[in-house]
Amino acid sequence: MALADLVTVERNEAGIAAALGILKQRFGERFQTNADVRRVHSHTTTYIPAQLPDAVVFPESAAEVEDIVKVCAEHRVPIIPFGIGSSLEGHVNAPGGGISLDTSRMNRVLAVHAEDLDCTVEPGITRVELNTYLRDTGLFFPIDPGANATLGGMAATRASGTNAVRYGTMRDNVVSLTAVMADGRSITTAGRAKKTSAGYDLTRLIVGSEGTLGIITSLTVKLQGIPQAISGGVCPFPSVETACQAVIATIQSGIPVARIEVVNELQMKAMIAYSKLDYPESPCLFVEFHGSDAGVAEQAELFGEITAEYGGGPFLWTSVPEERAKLWKARHDAYWASQTIRPGAQGLSTDVCVPISRLAECIAETEADIAEMGLIAPIIGHAGDGNFHVLVLLDPDVPAEIAQTEVFVARLNERAIRMEGTCTGEHGIGQGKVGFMELEHGGGVEVMRAIKRALDPQNIFNPGKILPAG
Amino acid sequence: MALADLVTVERNEAGIAAALGILKQRFGERFQTNADVRRVHSHTTTYIPAQLPDAVVFPESAAEVEDIVKVCAEHRVPIIPFGIGSSLEGHVNAPGGGISLDTSRMNRVLAVHAEDLDCTVEPGITRVELNTYLRDTGLFFPIDPGANATLGGMAATRASGTNAVRYGTMRDNVVSLTAVMADGRSITTAGRAKKTSAGYDLTRLIVGSEGTLGIITSLTVKLQGIPQAISGGVCPFPSVETACQAVIATIQSGIPVARIEVVNELQMKAMIAYSKLDYPESPCLFVEFHGSDAGVAEQAELFGEITAEYGGGPFLWTSVPEERAKLWKARHDAYWASQTIRPGAQGLSTDVCVPISRLAECIAETEADIAEMGLIAPIIGHAGDGNFHVLVLLDPDVPAEIAQTEVFVARLNERAIRMEGTCTGEHGIGQGKVGFMELEHGGGVEVMRAIKRALDPQNIFNPGKILPAG
Repeated sequence: MALADLVTVERNEAGIAAALGILKQRFGERFQTNADVRRVHSHTTTYIPAQLPDAVVFPESAAEVEDIVKVCAEHRVPIIPFGIGSSLEGHVNAPGGGISLDTSRMNRVLAVHAEDLDCTVEPGITRVELNTYLRDTGLFFPIDPGANATLGGMAATRASGTNAVRYGTMRDNVVSLTAVMADGRSITTAGRAKKTSAGYDLTRLIVGSEGTLGIITSLTVKLQGIPQAISGGVCPFPSVETACQAVIATIQSGIPVARIEVVNELQMKAMIAYSKLDYPESPCLFVEFHGSDAGVAEQAELFGEITAEYGGGPFLWTSVPEERAKLWKARHDAYWASQTIRPGAQGLSTDVCVPISRLAECIAETEADIAEMGLIAPIIGHAGDGNFHVLVLLDPDVPAEIAQTEVFVARLNERAIRMEGTCTGEHGIGQGKVGFMELEHGGGVEVMRAIKRALDPQNIFNPGKILPAG
Repeated sequence: MALADLVTVERNEAGIAAALGILKQRFGERFQTNADVRRVHSHTTTYIPAQLPDAVVFPESAAEVEDIVKVCAEHRVPIIPFGIGSSLEGHVNAPGGGISLDTSRMNRVLAVHAEDLDCTVEPGITRVELNTYLRDTGLFFPIDPGANATLGGMAATRASGTNAVRYGTMRDNVVSLTAVMADGRSITTAGRAKKTSAGYDLTRLIVGSEGTLGIITSLTVKLQGIPQAISGGVCPFPSVETACQAVIATIQSGIPVARIEVVNELQMKAMIAYSKLDYPESPCLFVEFHGSDAGVAEQAELFGEITAEYGGGPFLWTSVPEERAKLWKARHDAYWASQTIRPGAQGLSTDVCVPISRLAECIAETEADIAEMGLIAPIIGHAGDGNFHVLVLLDPDVPAEIAQTEVFVARLNERAIRMEGTCTGEHGIGQGKVGFMELEHGGGVEVMRAIKRALDPQNIFNPGKILPAG
């Protein structure tokens, strides 16, 4: 796929050779230049061509990360932090070569502070690993971006997912972090107090900076008590518009909905076929409520009343775990179901997010665009946040389809930005969306560049990401 | 009060004279050099000596703010943004002279987006003005720092208050803002989408930067639906420790408490005397719950069970507005009550915040210190956030008392930082806490300095605040 906006990063051959020599000495078996290993560390899950690092190194401590950064800083060599590789916008590509810094061996839980509802972990732990560790504490880490991503990667891309509507995103859930800066020194951004007014918010500067400002070596995240009860359900609507109106009314009513997902007609058809359901083939909302036994029943009942006002129904819901799993199965299998719409096609996921008052309009215009361009592209969205994904199913061997998809994606991103939204609600900029930064941020891009220059003057941290060429 | 750590800022006499001449021409009546006006604009509500600006200017639009910044940038003259002057740490002082930029004439509501639960306002509007404006919408802006502060000032200092435990701080409640940067150009940090992963989080970089990185000219903040019902109450405990244990258990239980304030014995005695109550003279928790009629009753009952487990009680609570106001009256009058403990004394408020698991210990050590040093200093705290204020009542004409208070405050701040907390939960650094930045942030201070240099290379924005001399 020809992405005109990829930022080129010049290779520093002499520096790379020197740094590789030193790191190989220092890390032995934990330093790899094998092509297969390097290829896995450039896997982008998109059409952006793979750009392999020159080597992959597997540090086991913050001190080792400091060492790597010092070596790379001295020789002006790029370092690309790598969690598990589930990012979608070329975040882990190495356009100027250099070192992929794989955090998988830094996956310990350093402390659980149950009374403070937080825990401190190394960046390479995945969210499933963390929740398994927490199982007996009655606590859980709520952010669920779908993939079993690492906490470090999730923080770096400001990830969220289906239950952000209730629990927030990584922006809201990282209390503090320790990061190695471009001079090889570590900083800790904050203590563990729930709030602070002590100077610039370095925590939130590094969260979402995609490894371009510092490399996270530990982080403290908020935890939640496992809810006493969960109810969940599914409700069809005559249109995406009425479904979105019901979402707005639900949020306004103050119901603390834990998940509220919208699925459009095409996606619903695929899910019905795939999961062999007898739901109507119309747009649906999938919802989940967390709380006390009485609370989740009350929330579901109130939601049912709202759906009826907007022509939705029947609203099927339950608090019985097995039945809830059945109702939600179609949503959980959504990705696999969408693959069956066009067998053999490759899926490209978009990620716009708009104020929820504009969500219905944004989806409607997008559906019209899909129809007009003849694309095959189901839609699924985190409706409570105004965030939705179009999965464009295309044949990567047909250049015309790729070109058309590029036009479609550009129009979609521009539409969202025009509606006071963003080209990315939760996937990040990486390489794939660099071309939309100027449109979305205007003069803010120059401010971001000034920060990047100030904190990483040699541009060694994940170069070619987030910021368009200046 | 001798504060050794005040950062000196050299006066640029020639530049100040030039800028004053230009601004006087341009702003006419809205440009003031009258000593009384300047004095009001340096009022610090602390012992930090007043440092008057050379002039006060009253812009009425973002374009005028851009103008002022361009003039001051050209002549390298300090600009100190001024909301309503309720900050507590010398934020509005002018150590190098320059211009106080008073935002009081920029106090319009620019838009209310009821469906998105947000509104866009100019920085000079106060929270009471905003909530009056919103009265008929069914929505309200929840952050309540006590003072009727401006929204711009609250954003700049990352303010919060009694209900942050439920609604978060300004960090969580500013969706986006427009700011004039040091080159006189405006940036808008984000759209209005509820979440975004598009590059560095400039919103949260400017929130809490105390006017040192940019001047806020508009901001979009989250709103909440006015709760259907509110219940509130008060509960005595045998000790601060048991009260804090009940707070932890309440938060862990998932009760979405809207306010949970701890008051120590000395403060309680003063409140009882002042408000003529028959409460026991022991530490108390004041609580408030927001929700549905059934919800607030359930929350209060659950809380009552928890208090009993920790030896608290009787827990008096009600959902009847007049009775609730009566129960909470003592807490609302706390400041006035504390003034009666030592008539004629001046109060100096501290602001540490620690993880709630350490709150009881931090208060206990602090009470011991107060007793040992013979200070008169009641304590009141936002217990759900681990944030508490000691109001040291001292005679400003007795140097020994001031010296002793300085030692006490330093020990308190150091204690909180040692307990993984912060020297300021909600008041900010200003001038008063600059001396604790290195202890709290270590190498992070150098990162903050690099950001400051990159975004304000001439150091014209509120110089002498937040950052210790390098």
